[in-house]
Amino acid sequence: MNVKMKTALTIAGSDCSGGAGIQADIKTMCMNGVYAMSAVTALTVQNTLGVTGISEVSPEFLRSQLDAVFTDIFPDAVKIGMVSSPALVEVIAERLAFYGAKNVVVDPVMVATSGSKLISDEARAVLVEKLLPLAAVITPNIPEAEILSGMTVSSKEEMEIAAKRIGERLEIKERAGEKLDGKEQVGERSSSCAVLLKGGHSICDADDYLWTPRGGMWFCGKRINNPNTHGTGCTLSSAIAAELAKGEGLEVAVLHAKTYISNCLEAELNLGHGSGPLMHNYALLEKN
Amino acid sequence: MNVKMKTALTIAGSDCSGGAGIQADIKTMCMNGVYAMSAVTALTVQNTLGVTGISEVSPEFLRSQLDAVFTDIFPDAVKIGMVSSPALVEVIAERLAFYGAKNVVVDPVMVATSGSKLISDEARAVLVEKLLPLAAVITPNIPEAEILSGMTVSSKEEMEIAAKRIGERLEIKERAGEKLDGKEQVGERSSSCAVLLKGGHSICDADDYLWTPRGGMWFCGKRINNPNTHGTGCTLSSAIAAELAKGEGLEVAVLHAKTYISNCLEAELNLGHGSGPLMHNYALLEKN
Repeated sequence: MNVKMKTALTIAGSDCSGGAGIQADIKTMCMNGVYAMSAVTALTVQNTLGVTGISEVSPEFLRSQLDAVFTDIFPDAVKIGMVSSPALVEVIAERLAFYGAKNVVVDPVMVATSGSKLISDEARAVLVEKLLPLAAVITPNIPEAEILSGMTVSSKEEMEIAAKRIGERLEIKERAGEKLDGKEQVGERSSSCAVLLKGGHSICDADDYLWTPRGGMWFCGKRINNPNTHGTGCTLSSAIAAELAKGEGLEVAVLHAKTYISNCLEAELNLGHGSGPLMHNYALLEKN
Repeated sequence: MNVKMKTALTIAGSDCSGGAGIQADIKTMCMNGVYAMSAVTALTVQNTLGVTGISEVSPEFLRSQLDAVFTDIFPDAVKIGMVSSPALVEVIAERLAFYGAKNVVVDPVMVATSGSKLISDEARAVLVEKLLPLAAVITPNIPEAEILSGMTVSSKEEMEIAAKRIGERLEIKERAGEKLDGKEQVGERSSSCAVLLKGGHSICDADDYLWTPRGGMWFCGKRINNPNTHGTGCTLSSAIAAELAKGEGLEVAVLHAKTYISNCLEAELNLGHGSGPLMHNYALLEKN
């Protein structure tokens, strides 16, 4: 009666159609062998054709969920997805710092693949100032990397420069002593934030670039011709969180997460009338 | 690019600590090989020590979630968990009837194992009048069966009588033409509702009695000495829904679901300070 298991928490929105948000995160964490928990930031009405409704939780309610989780089953890793309001970002940053959260993976959801902005400038500013410095790794796509680095990214070389610039900025910010509310907990985390810049289809197919203070490296993914990509960003970041929770180093975690997402895509699930979800549980079906 | 997969929808509350509610349902459906979706009825603040907060969604928001799901990825089975307000029960019943939902499994959450009532008398009346007649099977525990049957249940013999009485009442109700809002869709479903009366620990350990119009049968479960039972009710009903979605008959679905839950318990996960969650993904860990 003493079987422990590594645990992971996702802080994100709910996608009732099951392909993205906490639903994708829970499936991913579950399939990657950790115990999954989820603090909901917002409920959405969505399916593979788009989002048609959103109902955000109050900062107090989000704080209560985080307290309920951290005081009972401490997560070995935390993944943060879309958080659209500055007040919610503030609550997350404050609580994560308070509890000394480990292995924080932030998917800085700011720009849709279509190019449209998903969060306000104010929320973005709070995200950059307060939340990103707590992260072990952040996983921007190209448009998000452009915002965070302040430069245009249109080639593999520029991906490398932008990732380095983003990572170094976060590092410098901490060195300068601009710690969150001056709390000591912040100082306990690793002093650097790695950046996984996702190439996606726009520049180099499935090749992603990881910058860490130790250096940079490319992860060359398999290009899979599957238009059903709803929830790939959520899935990648929560797979990384699951691997970090299990004690893997960042490079191995990214490698495993990319393999997992490739397998999910290769299963070629085709559900819904739009860009459909991944087959998160492909491993179980192959077995039968 | 044409891989389909059976799909299941849970309509229930969110448990941020991951052991019960839609989180348990999603893990269960995922691990039992179907595609999981979830319409959230309420967000709760809870962990293994109890529930400390609840935020219910509006009937309109629940309706929107159900429409987003049913119009895009039609579920092959639906599991309904705790729904505490009459207005939400009405919305679910109306939408399920409208879409002609199949393989509806209702966990009529009304009484906690401690004996305290979880929903109002008014909500219970709407549940019985409008939602239960749409179900293929309902899964009451002993206290819930006492309410639904109007009799005391304190032995295996009384479990059999109560289950039959509940099932026959629901059947008679439909024969008498008391269809939901007179809608024709209701008439399309199987004219009977099976009743799986869960013995739990109070009467006969893990033995459950299934009544169907074809007769009754006992499912003798394995008594597992594990105090960590947070979310067993959610898990059982969503495992049954997953099996029905895959096309299994009800008896086989219950058998598989009970085996699944036994295995989840036998993995002896021990997380949290109270009654901890099950290890829904035990199958993956054994493999490694």
